[in-house]
Amino acid sequence: MFNKLRLLTPGPTPIPEDVRLALARDMIHHRKADFKRVMERIQPGLQHLFGTREQVLPLSCSGTGAMYAAVTNLFAPGEKVVVVEGGKFGERWREIAQAHGLRVVSLVQEPGEAVTAAAVGEALAMHADARAVLVQASETSMGVLHPVRELGALTNGSNTLLVVDGISAVGISPCPMDQWHIDCLLTGSQKGLMLPPGLALLSLSARAWDKVRDVKPANFYFNLLAERDKNLEHQTLFTSPVNLLQGLAAGLDLFRTQGLESVYRKQWALTKMTRAGVRSLGLDLLAKTHFTWGLTSIKLGPGIDGGAILKTAADSYGVVMAGGQGDLKKSVIRVGHMGHVDWSDVLAGLHALKMGLTQAGGYSAARSYLEDALRAYEEALEGGYPGVEA
Amino acid sequence: MFNKLRLLTPGPTPIPEDVRLALARDMIHHRKADFKRVMERIQPGLQHLFGTREQVLPLSCSGTGAMYAAVTNLFAPGEKVVVVEGGKFGERWREIAQAHGLRVVSLVQEPGEAVTAAAVGEALAMHADARAVLVQASETSMGVLHPVRELGALTNGSNTLLVVDGISAVGISPCPMDQWHIDCLLTGSQKGLMLPPGLALLSLSARAWDKVRDVKPANFYFNLLAERDKNLEHQTLFTSPVNLLQGLAAGLDLFRTQGLESVYRKQWALTKMTRAGVRSLGLDLLAKTHFTWGLTSIKLGPGIDGGAILKTAADSYGVVMAGGQGDLKKSVIRVGHMGHVDWSDVLAGLHALKMGLTQAGGYSAARSYLEDALRAYEEALEGGYPGVEA
Repeated sequence: MFNKLRLLTPGPTPIPEDVRLALARDMIHHRKADFKRVMERIQPGLQHLFGTREQVLPLSCSGTGAMYAAVTNLFAPGEKVVVVEGGKFGERWREIAQAHGLRVVSLVQEPGEAVTAAAVGEALAMHADARAVLVQASETSMGVLHPVRELGALTNGSNTLLVVDGISAVGISPCPMDQWHIDCLLTGSQKGLMLPPGLALLSLSARAWDKVRDVKPANFYFNLLAERDKNLEHQTLFTSPVNLLQGLAAGLDLFRTQGLESVYRKQWALTKMTRAGVRSLGLDLLAKTHFTWGLTSIKLGPGIDGGAILKTAADSYGVVMAGGQGDLKKSVIRVGHMGHVDWSDVLAGLHALKMGLTQAGGYSAARSYLEDALRAYEEALEGGYPGVEA
Repeated sequence: MFNKLRLLTPGPTPIPEDVRLALARDMIHHRKADFKRVMERIQPGLQHLFGTREQVLPLSCSGTGAMYAAVTNLFAPGEKVVVVEGGKFGERWREIAQAHGLRVVSLVQEPGEAVTAAAVGEALAMHADARAVLVQASETSMGVLHPVRELGALTNGSNTLLVVDGISAVGISPCPMDQWHIDCLLTGSQKGLMLPPGLALLSLSARAWDKVRDVKPANFYFNLLAERDKNLEHQTLFTSPVNLLQGLAAGLDLFRTQGLESVYRKQWALTKMTRAGVRSLGLDLLAKTHFTWGLTSIKLGPGIDGGAILKTAADSYGVVMAGGQGDLKKSVIRVGHMGHVDWSDVLAGLHALKMGLTQAGGYSAARSYLEDALRAYEEALEGGYPGVEA
């Protein structure tokens, strides 16, 4: 009652009321006609969101499950892949690939840095036998946006697939699969899709499906070819996560009503707003140039404990944000602003951040951090977001 | 998805999740044991909220229904009452009293002004036959707080009852019935109680019950004596508003967890916050000295259309506030901040107000209105609220 809970983490994200009401609906059976109607209804919305004419497959798993499904279906042990390691989730691509017996060429990035298309091009030139580039559209651990469109221009027409983890990008910033020549795009439910965790979505290009057929994966659970056949019957291979799919249908209705362009415009404006507020507080941004549109990562000065800031923000202001990951746990704060988050939520986040910072001994004489942030928001809304066209 | 709806009206107010979940529960029958357990459970919480050892009766009606019940049960046609008319709801006391055939001595106040105990004392001296003073603890139409405690000191021990409409006061600012010698205290569900409209609550002092017994009201529906008997059996006289009472039980749990003192502290701090922000925007406050803790009324300068401000705030920022009432419709804006509202909601309200004002041509070069408001909030939280003791 005193402070409302405001969830500004980079997933799970707050859930809109229409989606929560759909999630609360009673069970229907996943092999019956009324469920098939739900599945039929969500497919066009998912294709629009993914920017693809291919099927988008719902999988009952976390985002990591979909990453695992991609790797194990697309590649045979012994094959070589290039992995962009820009943080914890790039690392995860590597770990999954290695666990599957792939040979990995790893392109490790400095914290906050995006890979360059030139570096990937060089790696591919050195490793002509690399069958794919595995990359995050948005590296959630750093708040970095990798140049997926440029990577697609590199791999398109070659023997190399472009496999993209879109977990904090799909529904947040443009990542049109067909237009950008992405061969595998996947996401989880708890980010831009504004759902609880537990559902992943994955789509493959025609040439990626050819590759899967070559590989003949032995997977029993993550069997994408069988999943695809079942999807044509508006079902899932095994028991479906029924209420998440009912919630997804409601969420896709919101995307349709709002318009994807309008969502991107909001996400861009919230990002510019957060960055302006953080700068006005005298703090450093971790990702300088290539930044995610759904979260902002902040690099704290020496001697400032991020954990203490998060505690004050949550306990005294009701705002829950995230720390860094791995080595950056205490020295980085990540403010999520994706999905069902608006300007006022970000305002709360900035003030909680400022008060946490003050308590942690890091107060800078910032005065107009909220007004500065709001001005940046208005300007970005007005100006629109950077185009998706090459 | 773009802007969340933020309801900053002086009722209905936003509903906490725990209460919404309770409201969504399936029906139980209002004459059976499980419902009686709900009724038994809410009574101590209501008594704590009202500050009384008397029974608090739930009535299936709006707040006006409870005002009507009070007047028609407590007074016989022809009796005289003093009415404090400080706005639309004081006017309503007069209208109900007149409709019931009472002789009304009306103390009309200037907009934004509270009645003084001296003026009421004078009226009572002139009208020794007045059987009651009818007053609002908080006049919602003006955001004015009348000096109920002082009025109680006047009427206590006399032949005059003190009848208090606590509709935007109970659960918002202190109004302890027994301690302040209030003879009738009533409220509606859609303000401090954080429920949908449709439920009213009313309590009478021992001497008020004596008066009801003298009057022998012929009311069939609002029959308080019969309602009281039924309440002793943990029921209501006619069909109970079952889900509102289930919601009330959940809401009272929140009050118990939070503590009433803590709620008052928050309400006081939000009021000081809003007033500081409004002043920082260069706007005038309607209630200068005696102001409600659950809403702030703003007097607009000439030529500024309040309707246009409200429209911008709602359409472009998702913040719904209220205009003035009656003649003040266009020239007053009322920002509600009662119940399930916190500092961040008020922040949103102030910014939406500023942007609406700018669009309506009333922009003053306000810069740090948000920081000024937050500073006032922190100071008021720290300092605590004005005491309830005489």
